[in-house]
Parts: sequence; structure tokens; C-alpha cells
Amino acid sequence: MGSLPLDASYVRPLNPEAFSGDSRAVIDFLAEYYRDVDKYPVRAADLEPGRLRKLLPEAAPEHGEPMEDVLEDVRRDILPGLTHWQSPSFFAFFPMNASAAGFAGEMLSAGLNVVPFVWAASPAAAELETVVVDWMGRLLGLPQRLLFSGGGGGVLQGSTCEAVVCTLAAARDRALGRLGHDNIMKMVVYASDQTHTTFQKGARLVGIPPSNFRVIQTSSASGYGLTADAVRAVVDRDVARGLVPLYLCATVGTTGLGAVDPVRELGEVARRHGMWLHVDAAYAGSAAICPEFQGYLDGAELADSVSMNPHKWFLTNTDCCCLWVANPLELTSALSTDPEYLKNVGTNGTGKPAAIDYKDWQISLSRRFRAIKLWVVLRRYGAGGLRAHIRQHVTAAKWFERAVAADERFEVVVPRKFSLVCFRLRPRFAGEDDETTLDGMNRELLAAVNASGQAFMTHFVVDGKFVIRLAVGGAMTEMRHVMDVWELLQGKADDVIHRYQLEG
Amino acid sequence: MGSLPLDASYVRPLNPEAFSGDSRAVIDFLAEYYRDVDKYPVRAADLEPGRLRKLLPEAAPEHGEPMEDVLEDVRRDILPGLTHWQSPSFFAFFPMNASAAGFAGEMLSAGLNVVPFVWAASPAAAELETVVVDWMGRLLGLPQRLLFSGGGGGVLQGSTCEAVVCTLAAARDRALGRLGHDNIMKMVVYASDQTHTTFQKGARLVGIPPSNFRVIQTSSASGYGLTADAVRAVVDRDVARGLVPLYLCATVGTTGLGAVDPVRELGEVARRHGMWLHVDAAYAGSAAICPEFQGYLDGAELADSVSMNPHKWFLTNTDCCCLWVANPLELTSALSTDPEYLKNVGTNGTGKPAAIDYKDWQISLSRRFRAIKLWVVLRRYGAGGLRAHIRQHVTAAKWFERAVAADERFEVVVPRKFSLVCFRLRPRFAGEDDETTLDGMNRELLAAVNASGQAFMTHFVVDGKFVIRLAVGGAMTEMRHVMDVWELLQGKADDVIHRYQLEG
Repeated sequence: MGSLPLDASYVRPLNPEAFSGDSRAVIDFLAEYYRDVDKYPVRAADLEPGRLRKLLPEAAPEHGEPMEDVLEDVRRDILPGLTHWQSPSFFAFFPMNASAAGFAGEMLSAGLNVVPFVWAASPAAAELETVVVDWMGRLLGLPQRLLFSGGGGGVLQGSTCEAVVCTLAAARDRALGRLGHDNIMKMVVYASDQTHTTFQKGARLVGIPPSNFRVIQTSSASGYGLTADAVRAVVDRDVARGLVPLYLCATVGTTGLGAVDPVRELGEVARRHGMWLHVDAAYAGSAAICPEFQGYLDGAELADSVSMNPHKWFLTNTDCCCLWVANPLELTSALSTDPEYLKNVGTNGTGKPAAIDYKDWQISLSRRFRAIKLWVVLRRYGAGGLRAHIRQHVTAAKWFERAVAADERFEVVVPRKFSLVCFRLRPRFAGEDDETTLDGMNRELLAAVNASGQAFMTHFVVDGKFVIRLAVGGAMTEMRHVMDVWELLQGKADDVIHRYQLEG
Repeated sequence: MGSLPLDASYVRPLNPEAFSGDSRAVIDFLAEYYRDVDKYPVRAADLEPGRLRKLLPEAAPEHGEPMEDVLEDVRRDILPGLTHWQSPSFFAFFPMNASAAGFAGEMLSAGLNVVPFVWAASPAAAELETVVVDWMGRLLGLPQRLLFSGGGGGVLQGSTCEAVVCTLAAARDRALGRLGHDNIMKMVVYASDQTHTTFQKGARLVGIPPSNFRVIQTSSASGYGLTADAVRAVVDRDVARGLVPLYLCATVGTTGLGAVDPVRELGEVARRHGMWLHVDAAYAGSAAICPEFQGYLDGAELADSVSMNPHKWFLTNTDCCCLWVANPLELTSALSTDPEYLKNVGTNGTGKPAAIDYKDWQISLSRRFRAIKLWVVLRRYGAGGLRAHIRQHVTAAKWFERAVAADERFEVVVPRKFSLVCFRLRPRFAGEDDETTLDGMNRELLAAVNASGQAFMTHFVVDGKFVIRLAVGGAMTEMRHVMDVWELLQGKADDVIHRYQLEG
């Protein structure tokens, strides 16, 4: 009976003392980072491609190194090359909130490191997931039929893209099951010109021919939301050509402009044609925990699925996406596997919340214990605290929108609905309707703001207009940061205008 | 100029003091958990479906609660319903290692919470990823052409399933680009009867007709590995029928039995037919950091892609899967999106490591900073420490295999290659070749072991035999735990045999 040979390089990966020591060093590192994050340039200071690669050795070290050295290298080599998503002056893309509670939940998930892919692989993890998705659905005012308590159900995935791929596959297999697989060439999917482009990527991924993506035009008249009439016109044409309308993606809070598609009207069109209706509320879904925003989800009872990302504006560290479906069996029919080595107590395949095999609700077999993260966030801040978090940002965005509207050099391009303000410089001097000049001025303005390191924003182009996006919602962002960025913008705008006036 | 209204429920999500307090409480909780984890029943003690759901309220709390209360609820309500994947006596499925370093890396990822989906969104995060996948590839002895330094490249995804879906999509689009999308009905994919069933799920997900999955039989003669002859026979038949061989999945270390498909021979078949060859080394890939195991990857230069999971046996907390491809453009051609609001410095779409947009290398747009996790693991333990970690488990598995072989009541069903031992009870008394009786005895033996709470193992069925799997590889698993489980098995075997002899 041998025993383990002693080895100088033997590691004790979960020795409690070593674990505590390393972990506390990282906590201290991060606490200092949060204390100082507003001192870093928001967008990565060093944008030279290949910089980090040159700093690091060609191969992994042969011998283990102390945590202090590792953290020192993070500080020296990595931080200068990061864009600081948690900076209070990060207004780019959409917010991706970290929080003490989200982090604590993430630590529990990573530390327990259970893998609730089948129910028996960790029953409490699977059940906690059924509980928190129901909690979330109730907070958003979703219809009962999307909750476990009403015959539907939900799952926590990593991203909206995954949710869209899974529901596209469910819709496709529902239709192909009826028509035969060779009809895949007839399946048509619908979205607006404002829908996130990952929808097209998802449709392509599940085998829908690229020629069968319909991108329906929107306009300022509907605030860049889809209209039922426009969808009907396109769908009717496809039906007349013998094609099969498969899936309509409605967005509540588009990425570019924060536009809203009318869920109820689109749901009625979808119903009439047997199409799957998905409602993507990735960003704006968080706002729906406040009753004043729940109207945007009106009609969700006509949806086959709804998704939103707690990892955006809901203080839940990346990644976490809630997906609810009205008929879990349609999802699991497209995604189930049932090999011998996974047969276990709890594997019943009925889609009942009591003993659910979440591997059949997502792309991957393995999965993280995300439920505990979202649960800690909900417990630690409470619905009231989370509403306050959302409302402070809406208040700040409203303030910013009014400031922009009141300044004759600027214009609000699309009326704000949530916490995203889309605006541009449009000074009243020669050339104010000269789109080429305005495009150049706004590009310069944005570049100047971002180069300052004091704030980071991104842009969008709509109807040929270059629009600057201020997405309020960072975990540390308060009114004063929004006031600061407005001051910064005004100063940089003066410079740009002055330069153009000299040149003009 | 308004200012933020004071609100009693206002939360300060990243206040450094609150962050440190909450985080330290979780660290202490987890250190205690690791200290005591071998005292919990390994498989969840409470397997009654719905137990946790009944304990928790119907809705999220309105007011935030202290972290202590949350942790107390984890201890009281959640831990009893978890299967303890980090227990040193967890021998089920495959190991999913947590470690102090993996956890520290996870904390840095979650704490910094940057989203390196496009290069400019955090240049250092994207570059660190290109560096660590090259480091890993070199450690495994992969051919240069799969590394960035050799014209290929890698990405960190969440799971093998994702890697398979992405490479299937790349293979499909490579073929359809040549043949036209309507040829999707002709695409055929190949795997063995030992290949993970998620391969079929992935193929179905990307729209391959289920009738075009070929499951090629293996046998004990080849150690349940695919043979080139068997693949050729099936492929030739498909080609003769006008079908298009698309993708062959070879596995190094199958889930059921740890079998190995011969990469070089299969690569030659794949080349001849223009098929994509993927090598799935999810579990056993970790062993290839030891030179004595690198032979199993011989021929990888013929592969279009290779994947392995550091989150299994490589001390990297869930989730982390390395995917390498020989031709990144084939991957990004299938997965790229290029909307206006993502156009930024660094977006060049050339697949060059210097300024890589990783959103085009995976399913989702958003992504976690996984690179820092794997990097901390490699730095903290070093290649030498990681080899010691792997070898101690191989040594323990060898010991167990010998013990089983030396006990006349048991048999090793398939010779061990890595750290997975597949065995069964086969006592020399009446009925030793009576498969029904052996099946019943082994099921009883496994159930008795798992019910004891002292260890958790899972099973597999091959050639009609019910096989017990001992997968050695837990982060805390040492030789003594393997010796303990052997003693436990012997005792339970005595009971089962005694019962059968009385009944017989």
C-alpha cells in the first residue's frame, strides 16, 4: 500500500490558511482599486496593440510565485491596459455593475464551485435558481405564465446571446417538428434595424439562412420602435412567397438608442402567424422593478420568452442573464441530452421545478451556481434598495437630458426613456444642417472627451447622424459624476466649435 | 441644478469598507467550509425535491438584510442541499477543481468586472487572453500552428459545449460558403458511441439534421477508441450517397471510460475528405502538461481545433475552457458581428493577436475576464506544481486500479489511462457471468457507497455492463482519500455479496 510521494512542488490548493491569505490580499487589492478607480483614465490609457504581450514572458513559469508578486504585476502591467468599467465616469456601452453583494455572491459561487447541471449534482443550487427567477419575474411584473408558479419557468444563463440562441433553437425545432427538417430553408426571423446585431448572429448560428433575416426599418416617428404595421407588411409578403415566419425579436431598450418595441402589438402579430415572440429587455428590464417602467412590458403574456440581464444595471457582477419561457418543454425539447452517466435521482425530464435538470435549459452541460449571486444581491439590497439604485440614475439622466436641451449648442436626438441619453453637438452657426460638418464635430468632441481620461462614452449612428451616448448606470455613478461629465462636454464643445469657426 | 434626493434605502454598492466587510465575511465562511467539507455527506444529504423551495419566501425581500443573515441561511438552508464537489471524496462525473489561486483569479475577474468583448473595451484583458492560451498550448505540447505565435490562436470559453458549437458553425459555414446554404441537409457529422452526447446537441443546435449524425461503434478491442477503418467505412458510404462529410469529433479521454481516439489516424481521414477535425480533451488535456501523457495528442497538427477545460482538473474554478483553432478567420467568419456602436480603436477584424475582438471568437457578445483567472493559476502554482497535482492523482488512481485487480471479487472493466478507474463487482460465485445479477449487485454497491455520505461516485454502462467510475482529481483529494474509498467499497461489497448469497 504505497503512499503519496513527497514532492517539493506539491500544492495544497484549498488549504484554508493559504486560501484565506491569498483571498484577503485580493480583497485589499480590490478595496484599494475601488477607492482609487476615479483616478484612473476611464478608457484604457495605453491603447498600443501588443503592449502587454511584449511585457510578459513567452511561457508559463515553472515554479509557483507568491501572490504579492502576482498582484504587483496586475497593478503595474494590467491595470494601465484596462478600461475601467466600474469607474463612476464610465458612460459607454451599457453599465456592467459590480457590487459588494454581487461580488459576495460570486465568491460563494466560485468558492463552493458546485455544478448544478443535473438536479442531483446539487439539488439546492437548482432549486435556488427556480426561486430567484420567480422572484425576479415578480419584481418585473411579468405575467404568471412565465413563472414556475404559473407553469412557465426560468433559467440563469450567461448572456442575452445565449438566451436568444436557445429560444431560436426551440422555435426552430417546434416548427421543424411539424414541417420536417428540410424546411429549415423556409424559416424567417424578424427584427428591427435597431435590434442588437447578435440576434442575426444567433439566427445564423442555429442554421437559419442569412437570406431569411428580415431587418425592418424604424424611424424617428415611432421613436425607433418597430410598428405592428411594418412587421405585418413584411410577414405577409413572406407568407405569400411560401416562407414560414418563425421568430420575432422585440426589444425593450435597444442598445443604440434605448428604443422600445411595442410588445403587445407585436405579440398579436406573432400569435396570428404562430411565430415565437421573444422580448429582449437586457438593459431596460432592470428598470421594470420600478412600477413606473412596467408599462413597457405590457403584453408580455403574449411572449414565448423574455430575457433581461441582472449583470448590466442590477448590481450583479458578470455574468447573469434571466431567461423566462412560457413553455419549458419547448425549450428542453430542443436542448435535452440524456446519456447514461447522467441518469440519477432527480432526472425526471418533466420540466417541473422540483427536480429540474438545467443542462436542458441552456447550451452547455456545465454551469456555474449563478443563482446564489443573484440571490445575495436581492437579499442584501432588497427590492427597495435596488429601486433606489435605478431611480438615482434615471434622475441623473433626466437632469442631463434637460441640461442638453437647454443648451443651444446641443440637441437631444431621441427622447430619453430610461437612463440613456442620445445627443449631439449642433451649434447655431453656419453649417448647422451640414451633416458632414456635424459628423466631424461630434466625432472630435467624443474623441476629446475620451482622450481626457475623465469620462468614457460611445457613439451610435442613426439616420446618418453621429450620436453620442451617455449611458448612466454605473455602480458608483452618482449625480455629481453626471454633472461633471456635462461640464467636461461643455468645455470640449467650446474647443471644437472654436476650432471649426476659425477654420470655417 | 438638482442634486440627488436622499433616500433611506440608497445603496453604496462599491463602498470600499462595505465591500471589505462583506467580502471578508465570505472568505471566513469559505475557509471554514474547506476545513469542514470532508464532514458533510459528499452527495447532497437531502434529496427530496422541492425542499429548498418550501423553505424560502415567495418574493424577494423589500429591505436589504445583513450579510451575516444571508450567510447563516446559506449554512442552514443551502449547504445541506448541495453535493460537495470540492470534497476530497468526490469521485463522481469528472473533478471540477477549485483552488486558492483559481479563486483569487475569479475574484480579480469579478472585482474588476471588465468586459473584454472588443479589444478597446479592455486591451490588456484581450491581450492577456492571447498570452495565456499560448502558454497553455505550449504546456500541452500543441503544435505551433494552433498558437498565436504560429498563425493560429486561442480563446477562453465557458465550456466544451460552446467550443464545439462554435467550431461546428465554423465548419458548417466553411462548407456552405462553397456549396450554398441549401446544402445544409447534406452535412454529416461523425463521432463515436463514446463521444459526449453534448456533441449531438451542438450539431443539432447549428442546424445539422439529426438524421445526419453518425455514431460510430467502438469496442473493447480498441479500448473503446474510434478506429480510422470504422470512420472511413461510414464516411465512404455517405460520400457515395452524395452527402458531405463535415466534422469529426475525436476525444482524448471520454467521459464514460476515459477512452482515447487516435488523433493522427483520424486526422488523416478528415484531411482526405476536407472534414473539420476537432479534438476534445476536456478532462484528459490537463494531463498533457506532463510529457508522459503528450503522446495522446500526437497528430494534433492535423486538427482544425483542440479544446480542454482548465476548470476540470487544472485548479481553475468554473468556468474556463481553452479552444485553439488553426485558422482563426474560419472561426470569426462564422461568428463576427460589426455594428456601429462597437466600432472603436482596436477593431480591425484581422484576427491578429495584437488587437483582437474576442466577441467574434465565441457565441456571446459579453464575456468575463477569464484570462486573469487562468493566469493567476499558472503564476501561483507554476507548471511544476500543476504537474505534481496531476501526477499525485494518477498515482492514486494507479494504486486503486491495482487494488481492484488484486481483489478477486472485483474487476477492472477498461484499463486506466489517466485518473479514471472503471471497475465493477464480479464475485466468483454462482452467477458471476449472469449480467442481470451483476447489474443489480453493482447498482446496489454504488447506491450503498453514495448513501453512506462518505464518497460519491457515478456509473456508466458499456457493452451492457454496469460500470462504477472512480474519477480521481479533486483539489483536496490525496492518496489517503482513495485508500479510504477502497476500504469503504470493500465493506459495502461484503454486504452486497452476503445478501446475494443468502438470497441465491
